[in-house]
Parts: sequence; structure tokens; C-alpha cells
Amino acid sequence: MTDEFLRRCSDIAGTTHVLTTLDDMAPYLTDWRRRFTGKARAVLLPGDSFEVARLVKACADYRVPLVPQGGRTGLVLGSVPDASGEAVVLSLKRLNRIRALDTVNRTITVDAGAILYHVQQAAREAGLLFPLSLAAEGSCTIGGNLATNAGGTAVLRYGNTRELCLGIEAVTPHGDIWDGLRGLRKDNTGYDLRDLFIGAEGTLGVITGAVMKLYPQPKAAITALVAVGSPQRALELLTLMQDDCGPSLTGFELMSDFCLRLVASHFPQLPRPFATHHPQYVLVELSSNESEQHAARLLETAIASAIAAGIADDAVMATSIAQSQALWQLREHVPLAQAVAGKNIKHDISLPISRIGDFLAATDAKLHKAFPGVQLVTFGHLGDGNLHYNVAPPIGVPHEDFLANQHAINRIVHDSVDAFDGSISAEHGIGALKRDELPRYKTEVELNMMRAIKAALDPLGIMNPGKIL
Amino acid sequence: MTDEFLRRCSDIAGTTHVLTTLDDMAPYLTDWRRRFTGKARAVLLPGDSFEVARLVKACADYRVPLVPQGGRTGLVLGSVPDASGEAVVLSLKRLNRIRALDTVNRTITVDAGAILYHVQQAAREAGLLFPLSLAAEGSCTIGGNLATNAGGTAVLRYGNTRELCLGIEAVTPHGDIWDGLRGLRKDNTGYDLRDLFIGAEGTLGVITGAVMKLYPQPKAAITALVAVGSPQRALELLTLMQDDCGPSLTGFELMSDFCLRLVASHFPQLPRPFATHHPQYVLVELSSNESEQHAARLLETAIASAIAAGIADDAVMATSIAQSQALWQLREHVPLAQAVAGKNIKHDISLPISRIGDFLAATDAKLHKAFPGVQLVTFGHLGDGNLHYNVAPPIGVPHEDFLANQHAINRIVHDSVDAFDGSISAEHGIGALKRDELPRYKTEVELNMMRAIKAALDPLGIMNPGKIL
Repeated sequence: MTDEFLRRCSDIAGTTHVLTTLDDMAPYLTDWRRRFTGKARAVLLPGDSFEVARLVKACADYRVPLVPQGGRTGLVLGSVPDASGEAVVLSLKRLNRIRALDTVNRTITVDAGAILYHVQQAAREAGLLFPLSLAAEGSCTIGGNLATNAGGTAVLRYGNTRELCLGIEAVTPHGDIWDGLRGLRKDNTGYDLRDLFIGAEGTLGVITGAVMKLYPQPKAAITALVAVGSPQRALELLTLMQDDCGPSLTGFELMSDFCLRLVASHFPQLPRPFATHHPQYVLVELSSNESEQHAARLLETAIASAIAAGIADDAVMATSIAQSQALWQLREHVPLAQAVAGKNIKHDISLPISRIGDFLAATDAKLHKAFPGVQLVTFGHLGDGNLHYNVAPPIGVPHEDFLANQHAINRIVHDSVDAFDGSISAEHGIGALKRDELPRYKTEVELNMMRAIKAALDPLGIMNPGKIL
Repeated sequence: MTDEFLRRCSDIAGTTHVLTTLDDMAPYLTDWRRRFTGKARAVLLPGDSFEVARLVKACADYRVPLVPQGGRTGLVLGSVPDASGEAVVLSLKRLNRIRALDTVNRTITVDAGAILYHVQQAAREAGLLFPLSLAAEGSCTIGGNLATNAGGTAVLRYGNTRELCLGIEAVTPHGDIWDGLRGLRKDNTGYDLRDLFIGAEGTLGVITGAVMKLYPQPKAAITALVAVGSPQRALELLTLMQDDCGPSLTGFELMSDFCLRLVASHFPQLPRPFATHHPQYVLVELSSNESEQHAARLLETAIASAIAAGIADDAVMATSIAQSQALWQLREHVPLAQAVAGKNIKHDISLPISRIGDFLAATDAKLHKAFPGVQLVTFGHLGDGNLHYNVAPPIGVPHEDFLANQHAINRIVHDSVDAFDGSISAEHGIGALKRDELPRYKTEVELNMMRAIKAALDPLGIMNPGKIL
């Protein structure tokens, strides 16, 4: 059966695009953080949407489960196969074309396997902005961004990947191509299948192409690092800046003092913007479609108001692109410094923005009580209510030993998130990693609707089994 | 059976909230434009989500179809029952509370039956903006806005109703309450059921509550009417204003000269901004979170650039709130003037923005050829690619007689929309009115997915039957 199936795959994609040896398959079987290596019957590398459709049809005919895969940069084991070896990996990497760019409609139509960075670049070359931006942008694909509804650093202004997408092309679990590649700002003709596929992590079909929104390229972006006394003060700063700067506010990232100390100790070459320590820092970015002077004046005025109102303690404003990049580097080096320090227990959570101060006070206290000396690495996209709330071992406790507490710590953090009406996965998805957590925090009513939809669209259960549900 | 069923409904909602006489039911059976009057077994008026759930359960137990109804301002017969008299109308009008408003999270939580205008007002009283705005705002409900994914005049900046919603509460066709009332900007924990219910026109369940986004109230909004030589020039103006004003551009409405002549002839008391006629006009609105001077300077500069570049021919800028309102009144009186002139054949369409010029040239020509002397009333939300493309009879032909051509004219317009990759329903939905059009313009692949989802979530087929599918 396998031979017959693989022969059919080779007939469709060509023998060189059906990988079956362990050596050839290895790069497709391990997740980004190298925590898990699965097994596969084969890795399939189709060259266009038609080949994807025919391969999915073959999988349906032979009841072979398939795992769609983009840049494999996901953090929840959503795009690697399980240990059974029954599935095939369907990599979209060869579907990497920019299909079209429309400067008046302000849209770009791309293959699902196009690298995010290349899409940003194509927009830039047309004088426009594709605003999705995240750490993995040099490797991740638009298809993966859509399948996980990726977030990143520009969500405050431009929304998640879902809000940036106008239409998709997808292959259904029956092997049909659904052409939903619409470039329309308004379309109310039936159920919103686009948004159902977005965020479904490849469990309802394979996204093969998309029409994404483009924006005018701002004429200037300006950055400041603002020191504040507490997360609560950071929230007051957010309100003030939203009121005074409106949509010019494009970034609002929180970092605790512990985060900056961690960066300073592991990357001593990076600048230290303040001579003294403050409890929290906010990296603020403003963009202007008018001019650099406009952005600078807006930011100066807002920061002056915040200091006058006792909301902000101090601030450093970047006066050059190099300085601005240096401030962003501090933020970007927080996860890197963590990685150097050793493995820790990560949480990608979101909360109603107004409850973040109380959530942190309550959850920090619970963790300190249960695990005295534990170190909290808290940073993230405060403007979206999204925190990366990571737990590192007490000084002197080896990181590897501390990982034994993962389950107990997840329970404390996730239960607290739930009590504050938050989400246990803000921007990374569920995948295989958080699948067992889901039934604890979703009602049966919601899970049953999800199961009914899965069974209705994928009756054979071949699409990325074991992920989400 | 009916008696038993109605007794159960009375036990749930109280006898006074189960209407069964024709007189009592009459206001709930006719659509907004008075084109159709249906029949119903009863009109149910629950007082809260729990009563809605118990009533839906009763409908499921007795296999009674139900038609959810908000403010009954829909334009596609989505919220009135059919002629069979088998269904009950479930009116959400008593669920009209503002449940909560969070000034830091910038969210408002409301019952589905809350009137749009009351939600706008509650936001305003808290110093914030709920940007959804449309002609029916004094009567329509948030539940109806969500069920139809309503558009309106602020979509360019703030998106459709879907983009304004963070979470919903809904009663499933089984009579269960799904609590999806999340106030989160990021939440990637499974399938996007929220967006599936939004726009489903009550065919998958009954939306009973929602968490909606609020925005800072702009410090100023400023309006201008710009005269341009063609739709193509209007598109060039759009590109220029997007580039120079970015998100400050909050309105961009196109009106043909014919529209303004129609308004002038039926509402002679309204101002006439220009001494001479121009082929097309664009109503532009800019908002600023900084100051009125900022908005005015931005608008003046952009219009000056447009005139210098030969894109705009002339412009009138409002210099007071009264003048601004007068300009908006011209726009708002286009549909009113049409109504006075007599019935015409309406289309709510959208197109890729870049194709609007070609679409209008091609479609106008086809209609003029098929129906010589026909008059085209073209206006709409150009910034969203959304046109109200209405066809009035040649001079001298009675409007009522002309309506006999409805089918043939719909065919020409909708086929042309389809050829230009547009949508036959931009912001009004499908309802019962456009249901038979859908199979002509959607692929079987897409329709089959919609049917599978409908059958999976509403296996008894009791939710608003005959609408959409």
C-alpha cells in the first residue's frame, strides 16, 4: 500500500520531490526549538497548488494523515509529525512565488510558502508596507503565519495576521482547491471560511495562497524607552499615548528590569540607556505618514505629559535610526538572553489589558510562594495585552532540573490566566504542545462546535491529526 | 403540538412576551423597505440570554424553525420569516443592556439587542469612540450588525463590524449558551467560531451579547468635497490621500454628478457647494487625535497636492461643524432622493479598488446598450471598494414598470461584478433576497463547505431556514 501510495505521489510531484530516506527527511521532522523529533512515511514537496490538491487527494484515497509545513518556526509543535511514522509531511516551501502586487488596491497575492521577509521586501520595493513582523521573519512563511494567526510587534496598529488577510486559496481535505483569493475590503456572501482556515493550524485544509493587505509606508518611525514604576503605570502610559497619538502609536512593548539586567549580563556590548534601574520599561514606537518632525514632536509631547502627570519616571528618545535600532535590539535580545541563560518555562498569554497589573501581582505571588526564589522574566506586547511570562529557576538551581516543575508551573499560570479571563495562547497557537491544556480552559459547548466543524470538513480525519483537538 | 410548544414558550418568557395575534405580530413580520410580509406561528420576546437558550431548546425539541430578529433594518430579507407560517420570530429587542465598559481595555460589552446609537452614546459618555456608523443606527441593533457584518461610513479606518468585535455570546441551535465573551486582542486557542457566527445571518445560532472595541475619540474631524473628472481620478486621489494622511483618512465617499443633481432637485434647501458641475465628487473626511489645526493643515496640504497634480479639479473645505454636517447631508440624501424619485434597482457590490474605473466603464456601457436611456445612480464607500450601483428608468418610464427588468439588470450587473473579481453583496448580506444568486457566483467547493458547516452546527435545520443557503 505504502509503495503504491508513494508511487502515486512521485507521479504527481516528481520522484525528487518525494523524500523517503531518514537523512533526506531529517530537516523536516524536528521542531524549531529542538524539543521534539517525529517520524514520517515521506516528505512531499509539491511545486504548485494543483500538485498540493492531487497529493491531498492521494492521502485521502489511501487514508494517509498529512502534516502541512511552512518554515517550521512554530513554537507549539504544530508543523512536525508525531512519533507514529504514519503521516507524511507536506512542505509548502516550493510554493514561494509573489503572484501579484496591486499598488492601488494595496494588496499582494502570494504563495503560501513565500518567506515573510520576502513579502515585506516586495512591498517595500513597491513603496508600500506589509506590516507583519516577528522574530522568525527570515524563515517563517505566510502560510504558517496564516495557519497560526501569527502576531508580532505591529499588532497594536495593524492587527494579527487574520486582520491582514483579505482572501485565501486552500486545498480541502477532499483534495479540492478552494479559490477564495479575493482582494475585497467588504464581502458578505456567506460564511467566513477564510477566518475559519486562518488559525486552524492546518487541521481543516492546506492554505496554498493568500491576498494580503498593504499599507502606505510611514514617512518616519521614532522610538523611545520609557522608565515606569510598575505595570500599572505602564498601562496608564498606554492610555495616555493612545489618546494623544491615536493610530500613530505602532509599538508598545513592556520589559521588566529583570529582563534588561539579563540582556546586560549576557550581551554587555549593547547600550544601557539609563544610569539607574527602574522597575519596568516600555519601548514605544510612533509612526507618521507626514514627517519625522511630526513623529518626534508627537512623541516628545506625549512623554512630557506622562512625566508631568507622574506616570513616567524617565525616558530616552532615539534621535537616529541607529539609536532606534539599538533600543529595539534590547527588546529583541530578551528571548536571546533567556536562551543563553538556560531553558525556562515559557507562557504566551493574553489578558484584558485593564487586568494585567492585578494578574501580575496575583500570579507572581503564587509562583513565589510555591517555588521560593523563582525568577520571572516578564515582557511582551503590552499594547495587545500579550505577555511572554517566563519562569526561570532560583539562583543556583540548574535549569534542566527545574524543568521537572513545568506541569505544576503551567497549572498555576494558566489557572490564573483563566481566572483573569485571559488566553493560554495569545499568538503561538495550540499545536500538539498545548492540546491537552485546551479541554481544561474551553467549555464543552465550544469544544463540541470545534469537533463538529472538524468532522464536517475533514471526515476522514487526515488533516494534521493530534493538533489542536 | 403548537399549543404545547407555545405553552412552554410562555412558561419560559412569560405570556406577555409570546405574541400570537396577527395585530401583535404585524410589526415583526414586514421588512424595512416594506417589500415582503411573512407569517409566523408566534413572536417570542425573551428578556435575557438564559431565556433565549431555553426558547431555542424548545424550538429544537418541537422542530420549530426560528428567525432571530434585531432592529429589522436589514435590506436582504434576512430577519423576517417566510410565507409558510411555520417559524417563530425570536426578537432580541428586550436584550438591550450595556453590560460593561472598560476604559483601559477599551471595550464595551453589550446585549445583542442594544441599539447601535445607544452603544455609540455610551462610548461617547466615557470619552471614547465606537466607530460603527450607518444610516439605520437609530434602529438597528448590535446583534443585527454582527449577524450581517455591517459596514457603513467608517470602514476605511476602523473596519467592518467583524473587525470591531473581540468576542461574542451566542446560543447554539441545541439551546446551549456559548460564552465567547472575550475582551482579548490576541487569542489563538482553536477555531475562530466568533467570525463564523459573525456574518452568518442567524443561520448558525443566535448572538446574544458581544464585546466590542472602543477607540480614542478623535480631537477633530474635518470634511471636504472634492470635484474630480472621473472615477479613475477619484482612485488617484485615494492613493494620494492614503500616502499623505495614513490612518487620519477616515472617510472617502464617491458620488456621481447625477447623484448630486438628484439631491438638488428633490431637496432644494440643501447647499450646492460648487457653482458648476463636475463629473464626480468625493466626500473626504480626516480625523486627528492631535488638534483641529492639525487635521485642517493635513487636508489642505493633500488637496493642494491633488490640484497641483491635476488629480482634483476643485474642492470645498468645511470650516465649521455645521458646514461639515451639510456636506455629509448631501451624501446621506442620495438614497433619500432616490426613494422620493421612485423605486429603482439596487446593487450593493464591492470590487478590488484598482478595478472600479474599468468596472464602471464596462458595466455602464452594457446597461446603456441593453436598456437605452437608463439612468445610473452610482455612489458609495469608494475607499472600501464598495459601490451602491443603482439603476433608475429612462426619463418618462414609470418606475414601477421598470422593475420588471430587475432580473435582467441584476444579471448584467452581477455577471460583470463577477468578471471583475468583485462581490455581489458587500455589506448587506445574502438573506432570502440574494439566496438564489449565490450558487451562480460561488463555487461548489465553497458552497459544499458552507453546507457541511450548517449541517454540523444545526443538524435539525431550525436556524433561520431559507436564508443564505
